[in-house]
Amino acid sequence: MRLLPNPRIVLFIALFAGFAFAPGCTSTRQAPRMDPGAESAIRAVLTTQTAAWNRGDVAGFMDGYWRSDSLRFASGGTVQRGWQTTLDRYRRSYPDRAAMGTLTFSDLDVDMIAPDVALVFGHWALARDAAHPPASGLFTLNFRRFPAGWRIVSDHTSAASPQ
Amino acid sequence: MRLLPNPRIVLFIALFAGFAFAPGCTSTRQAPRMDPGAESAIRAVLTTQTAAWNRGDVAGFMDGYWRSDSLRFASGGTVQRGWQTTLDRYRRSYPDRAAMGTLTFSDLDVDMIAPDVALVFGHWALARDAAHPPASGLFTLNFRRFPAGWRIVSDHTSAASPQ
Repeated sequence: MRLLPNPRIVLFIALFAGFAFAPGCTSTRQAPRMDPGAESAIRAVLTTQTAAWNRGDVAGFMDGYWRSDSLRFASGGTVQRGWQTTLDRYRRSYPDRAAMGTLTFSDLDVDMIAPDVALVFGHWALARDAAHPPASGLFTLNFRRFPAGWRIVSDHTSAASPQ
Repeated sequence: MRLLPNPRIVLFIALFAGFAFAPGCTSTRQAPRMDPGAESAIRAVLTTQTAAWNRGDVAGFMDGYWRSDSLRFASGGTVQRGWQTTLDRYRRSYPDRAAMGTLTFSDLDVDMIAPDVALVFGHWALARDAAHPPASGLFTLNFRRFPAGWRIVSDHTSAASPQ
């Protein structure tokens, strides 16, 4: 017991140690600890989305989005709210395989903001047949990590002109 | 001294207390502690921007942006990089007061992602004279807090069609 002679000194040392080395502790000025697999998990969601789109599976494409009425989808000058509303919009805008064409994402930039939050910037392009002009543009996606995985909670998409 | 009878017990209790109540400690699953003044500081940056724009001061408008070559400005299908490049683009697109018109931001939604990071969604509109059609659209801004204050580090702007 003589190795710990004074309970008050022990109290202060131990409290200090607890504060200094507490697990999961990040100061507001330090970069948060990131999951090194997060970026690849996010990129995998986007790859799964384009694969679904390119087999004509709009609902599968929508699996990348947060299935919530609070999903935010901004395009041009219009904001849609909700997963179902966004799905309905895609189905109206791309009624068949020819309209859907072949989707490619490129120039992806994944910015991990917090362990459970990322911003993803990128370029989209649709290659289509002669009846449908090609279309392309940019997107800014806010991804959040949920128990089921990473999902897009807000999407801002713009199109290059002429579309 | 009899209130703290056993140094080993004190050690364990104090370490636990340090872990449990360490200041600045946020688990990755908990919301970060937010500065309650952050949202109003961010809104003030946007108000200062529109005031500058509406007196024809494009450089003053640009004070709201991160003065860095890494600033990201995405519009339609084009990404500009850097503060100076973005200023030059604004000066080309809005060469005089009539082209600049009167700028209004509305439907602002400030989403505090981390103590030093926010996403801001909103609607922009330009009222102009008969020679310049009105224009409007949406923006998604990524704000970061710097020692000098909150600044936009990335901007995605889209226009409603027809512009």
